[in-house]
Amino acid sequence: MTAFTADDHRFMAQALRLAERGAWTTRPNPMVGCVLVAGGAVVGEGFHVQKGGPHAEVVALQAAGDRARGATAYVTLEPCAHTGSTGPCADALIEAGVSRVVAAMRDPFPQVDGAGIDRLRAAGIAVESGLMETQARALNRGFLSRIERGRPWLRVKLACSLDGRTAMANGDSKWISGEASRADVMRWRARAGALLTGSGTVLADDPHLTVRLTKDAPFAVPLRVVLDPGLATIARGNIRDAAAPTIYVHAQDTKVPQGFNAPRVAIGRGGDGQLDLAAVLTALGGGEINEVQVEAGATLSGAFLRAGLVDELLLYVAPVLLGERGRPLFDGLGIDTMAQRLHLQTIDTRRVGDDLRVLLRPKPAA
Amino acid sequence: MTAFTADDHRFMAQALRLAERGAWTTRPNPMVGCVLVAGGAVVGEGFHVQKGGPHAEVVALQAAGDRARGATAYVTLEPCAHTGSTGPCADALIEAGVSRVVAAMRDPFPQVDGAGIDRLRAAGIAVESGLMETQARALNRGFLSRIERGRPWLRVKLACSLDGRTAMANGDSKWISGEASRADVMRWRARAGALLTGSGTVLADDPHLTVRLTKDAPFAVPLRVVLDPGLATIARGNIRDAAAPTIYVHAQDTKVPQGFNAPRVAIGRGGDGQLDLAAVLTALGGGEINEVQVEAGATLSGAFLRAGLVDELLLYVAPVLLGERGRPLFDGLGIDTMAQRLHLQTIDTRRVGDDLRVLLRPKPAA
Repeated sequence: MTAFTADDHRFMAQALRLAERGAWTTRPNPMVGCVLVAGGAVVGEGFHVQKGGPHAEVVALQAAGDRARGATAYVTLEPCAHTGSTGPCADALIEAGVSRVVAAMRDPFPQVDGAGIDRLRAAGIAVESGLMETQARALNRGFLSRIERGRPWLRVKLACSLDGRTAMANGDSKWISGEASRADVMRWRARAGALLTGSGTVLADDPHLTVRLTKDAPFAVPLRVVLDPGLATIARGNIRDAAAPTIYVHAQDTKVPQGFNAPRVAIGRGGDGQLDLAAVLTALGGGEINEVQVEAGATLSGAFLRAGLVDELLLYVAPVLLGERGRPLFDGLGIDTMAQRLHLQTIDTRRVGDDLRVLLRPKPAA
Repeated sequence: MTAFTADDHRFMAQALRLAERGAWTTRPNPMVGCVLVAGGAVVGEGFHVQKGGPHAEVVALQAAGDRARGATAYVTLEPCAHTGSTGPCADALIEAGVSRVVAAMRDPFPQVDGAGIDRLRAAGIAVESGLMETQARALNRGFLSRIERGRPWLRVKLACSLDGRTAMANGDSKWISGEASRADVMRWRARAGALLTGSGTVLADDPHLTVRLTKDAPFAVPLRVVLDPGLATIARGNIRDAAAPTIYVHAQDTKVPQGFNAPRVAIGRGGDGQLDLAAVLTALGGGEINEVQVEAGATLSGAFLRAGLVDELLLYVAPVLLGERGRPLFDGLGIDTMAQRLHLQTIDTRRVGDDLRVLLRPKPAA
């Protein structure tokens, strides 16, 4: 176990902050930040902006120039050893004469997976790994989910009243949460590779499912995904506008209407006759989607939860009461006794405008 | 409009903090704090502890002794001018030679209501009123509600899941909220003059409705109030134990069983055939109850809300999901459209253990 110094932590924290600046743009690549330190001072820093663009290490090395010689490189992810869109970062670090590399974590990507560290060590560079790994893993939870689990990180976003209602009995849900919450949702959308909804929401709310930011900032446009087993909603909707690509997920047994030529994926049905949601996610993972944000009603949200596929719940609670006739937060959970209740862990709580925003994750069974 | 100085604010804030130390003990009297300042320094301070005991001004004057001469007295409530359990504080301040009195607010109690201020002025003392009045009113919201509206301040305490459920379909609600929340509830109970529940809760949960503190501290024992229109629960229950007095509220048309000799109040029924809840509160106000904490199920809590009688909602939200079959937060609200939704104002939000505690008040119609 390497003992890292306070300075090591400080510089890695800086590299993590840099990495996060790519949150809206790097996908499907992971976010990566790099800080080069010589004589106790930062001589270069960089982060990966987008696929095809230079890696964090290259940006930092260019900034440092000759000062990289003998420097320590703090990187939030193991430097790559393969030639992708750019040359291997391990080679660039070796060439620049860096003497020590501290990585927050190994890169589980099959073409790296320790090879970068090996190559650096073979060149005589001191390499340490695992500094602030928890934070580094949290940063790239989407990328890591896709590489390690073969499916994207799934976040369910819901807005509800204090009494846990997401809509009136008649389906009306405009607007439970306030303006500030709706603007906040846009920032979460911007970091998702795909925004997923169901045919019911398309018919009831006709959402755009696009990223509309209050301040102009670059972002990779998220794919819109409509779960529509019977392809019932394809004739209509804002979701078909030109603002973003849209893909329909339908059942394998559905006859595709003639002339329908939008992108689509056919998925089998599970034992309950519904679309196999795990297979949907596997398909999205195969399409290089790191993070999916579900914005749907109580039925589809409940189905993901029941299937154990929800990684994160982003809940906006408005200080209103909709009453006992309103629609539930999650439908179809089928919980009858206190012992069956689902436990979550609160990750973050804050006020957003008049609303309360709570970020939760399912609690692993004790 | 008097211009108060920063020092005035500082000393009044100190008096308010002192006053609050009586939160669990002064009822039915208001909480009052007093700080005496001479030459820029505090020469005496005090707060009212309990009915029959000395008033805040008297405690502060005793502490100050001769140093009270020429001092400024900061009091959170207008000094009394009548002889109640103790002599008039206005006279004590005059006698001690205080030269200036700053009161946070007039005392609306009919036997004071400006008479204290008049008496001080008649004695040549400079009197100013209204410094930090909002805070002073908030402190004594229960007392003020009783004096000004003829009924207690009504707080509804509820514990629910993230999806707004207060119990399973079978009625089981033990325990939705965590240990820290349940300890916190005890501290809110300690400041209530009465803890009110319904016959349904008595039958389902058999609550004690007593104050059980983790750290020993003095408190006036709250009255337990059971709303039991047909006197159906009188034969049983922890609520009849000797730990606190209990009063039954029943319907006027209910035949009182022979031999039943517990304290009781008969109340008429409203147009809906249910107990007239406004009349219940008026009766409790007449019994010198300043603050009522309702700890009941969704039906009774919903009835108070529907009747517009809820002043404050103390909500503990546990990070669990009970599912769509669970009991609602408030039942019987009869809301059908988004326009009918009830708006609340968030007063305070904090984590209590793993739970989220939200204090809200109904928003006055715009």
